[in-house]
Amino acid sequence: MRNLEVNGGRLWGTIMETARFGGTPKGGIRRLSLSDSDREVRDWFVGSCREAGCDVTIDEVGNIFARRSGRDNTLPPIAVGSHLDTQPTGGKFDGVYGVLSGLEVVHALNDAGYETEAPLEVIDWTNEEGTRFSPPMLASGVFAGVFTREYAYARQDREGRSFEGELTRIGYRGNIRCPGQKPGAYFELHIEQGPVLEAENKEIGIVTRAQGMRWYDVNITGQDGQAGCVPMPLRHDAALACGRMIEAVNKIALDHAPSAVATVGMVEIRPNSRNVIPGFALVSVDIRHPDEAVLDAMEKELGEAVAAIAKASNVKAKLTPFWNSPGVRFNEACLGAIRTAVESLGLRYRVMTSGAGHDAIYIARIAPAAMIFVPCRGGVSHNEAEEITREQARNGANALLNAVIAYDKLLNP
Amino acid sequence: MRNLEVNGGRLWGTIMETARFGGTPKGGIRRLSLSDSDREVRDWFVGSCREAGCDVTIDEVGNIFARRSGRDNTLPPIAVGSHLDTQPTGGKFDGVYGVLSGLEVVHALNDAGYETEAPLEVIDWTNEEGTRFSPPMLASGVFAGVFTREYAYARQDREGRSFEGELTRIGYRGNIRCPGQKPGAYFELHIEQGPVLEAENKEIGIVTRAQGMRWYDVNITGQDGQAGCVPMPLRHDAALACGRMIEAVNKIALDHAPSAVATVGMVEIRPNSRNVIPGFALVSVDIRHPDEAVLDAMEKELGEAVAAIAKASNVKAKLTPFWNSPGVRFNEACLGAIRTAVESLGLRYRVMTSGAGHDAIYIARIAPAAMIFVPCRGGVSHNEAEEITREQARNGANALLNAVIAYDKLLNP
Repeated sequence: MRNLEVNGGRLWGTIMETARFGGTPKGGIRRLSLSDSDREVRDWFVGSCREAGCDVTIDEVGNIFARRSGRDNTLPPIAVGSHLDTQPTGGKFDGVYGVLSGLEVVHALNDAGYETEAPLEVIDWTNEEGTRFSPPMLASGVFAGVFTREYAYARQDREGRSFEGELTRIGYRGNIRCPGQKPGAYFELHIEQGPVLEAENKEIGIVTRAQGMRWYDVNITGQDGQAGCVPMPLRHDAALACGRMIEAVNKIALDHAPSAVATVGMVEIRPNSRNVIPGFALVSVDIRHPDEAVLDAMEKELGEAVAAIAKASNVKAKLTPFWNSPGVRFNEACLGAIRTAVESLGLRYRVMTSGAGHDAIYIARIAPAAMIFVPCRGGVSHNEAEEITREQARNGANALLNAVIAYDKLLNP
Repeated sequence: MRNLEVNGGRLWGTIMETARFGGTPKGGIRRLSLSDSDREVRDWFVGSCREAGCDVTIDEVGNIFARRSGRDNTLPPIAVGSHLDTQPTGGKFDGVYGVLSGLEVVHALNDAGYETEAPLEVIDWTNEEGTRFSPPMLASGVFAGVFTREYAYARQDREGRSFEGELTRIGYRGNIRCPGQKPGAYFELHIEQGPVLEAENKEIGIVTRAQGMRWYDVNITGQDGQAGCVPMPLRHDAALACGRMIEAVNKIALDHAPSAVATVGMVEIRPNSRNVIPGFALVSVDIRHPDEAVLDAMEKELGEAVAAIAKASNVKAKLTPFWNSPGVRFNEACLGAIRTAVESLGLRYRVMTSGAGHDAIYIARIAPAAMIFVPCRGGVSHNEAEEITREQARNGANALLNAVIAYDKLLNP
């Protein structure tokens, strides 16, 4: 039997249509989790899934499940999904592409009149980005038992608004318990967000594992002072210590080249006034590596750097670890289904490690899971300039569709 | 004739009474220029000056002039003053002390039935701190012809509200032209904001000059990227360049020890999200030294550092100078009047240089001017913990009162 195929034009149309919810003048999307634009895209998604014949349910942390019936609805569903929220200046594909490809898989199965053995579920996970409510992958984390529902509800954005309050405000606090029914398998299709596939002219990345990630806050306390009157040797300058921390974090990654990455993405200086020596600084630290032992070594070096910089800069500094997502190896049966699909489609592929966090990393703790990557232009992501081609989008969705079918066939060989 | 004296208890009472306008839980003041709390303290000040028998006028940039008549009101006034606005987390004395000591001078002259030859004016200058509307000393700068009125009106705070709009909103856009009548002399009493007087157990600083100051923006442009997916060598990390700039600014000051100071007081990172490599950073730079030639050298080193760091960090960076307040030498006749007053009062004093910017620095361009400093605890300023004793407050106000009288006597010897 020949492979089923998605309708690439229809898929592209839904991506462009939903890009207007939170769309920015530069062609990106600003769709923070549980914002008004998140509600708009959710409303669109729920309506479109119902039009495609799915039953839609919403759980108590706002995850949306759109179910297409199978031949045997007592089987746990084969799930596909990702997230519809974006970074503050995000692109049109990160997350969105995976969710809308799931919807396209439903359409393609409908068009072909193909009945799967197990039901199929398309999932939109709440607050994957973690940029409005920290940490990331929050609601898939609740689903996977990593966080409690109460922990999620209590998360606050920078203005002090709670996850629970905003979820209720936008009308997406559902009545389905979370954690809910475990899927039989979970596939997540995503853009690579890095430059490897494009550089090697590959069409598909089969993601066999994800690197571990750890997040920290460094709180630096010095003393505010008048910029003109406090001699240099008498200063307790939190900004100076902040600057040294940024350099140290960079060095720690370079010392564990080539696989380690480390990032200071957020800095807050107080009082943040041109003529005041800052008395306080908050520095965020994100370190990643596939190997937990290397992460342990990086964490140790980070602690040493904080202590040395505090001493050299005449300030106090405190390192607080607050999120830790261990590396995972994805499921062999799921990876086998993806490989079968990609080979039968004749797509050029390579196996790879995910550098980013994804909902699949948490779902892998409770169900067989794996990921599929497609290239993105220049490896650019978390950026309004994020771009993929129509052909890349179609290839990935075809891989997802046929991986689902291949896995489903394992259930009733 | 013995010296007149201020009423130290009354002076202290007005400082504590006005500290409630914008008062913070930690005992400091947050009274940003042209805010509601600025309006409150202005209303209090205008009312108190009128009760003390002064004529109050307000100019078109919100400067308040409270005039006590002299024997010959055709003479230009002898002016005293400072500012009632504060830093975001400021103290109870920076600026306020100089204005309220001016009011106390009026009270003391009234109590003694003392008639000066020239009229006396107490001035509150608008937006000295420059923390809400940049640059600092904005309205004394308009008065001194450094800035145009239109330039001041167009300044915006970070939320995009204009100086003109906020001035009108709080009801302090007056009808007196600015620049207005030049004073015959100008004395400004201020806390030192540094540790020297306290360390040397002096009661008064006679400020003979002020160091030069230059302000710059460094705009750093890299490229946003996903923190997990972009290998270290491929990054264009604006935060890394920002960190290196902070270290470089510190080094430039140390290389011109002991008189140079340099400060990064403000940092803005975008998008400022934990898992995004920042594509943009704004770094403020403030350099100060008494000698313009040294400032020229520091500026040159700053430019070289920006270029070298941009290259090493794979980003673009642009250095923009946008404010330059040259060093000044204060007026000998004014300094002589202060010395006469301080010696007759038997106060321990030293001559010194002002490290900070003050309205007196601009007024010195158009009129004879000088400053008087009093110690502050630990040299702490621009900080809620800023503190002086009642005795220090009284000593400074007595020096101001008797300097005014001494200068006035020069007019009719």
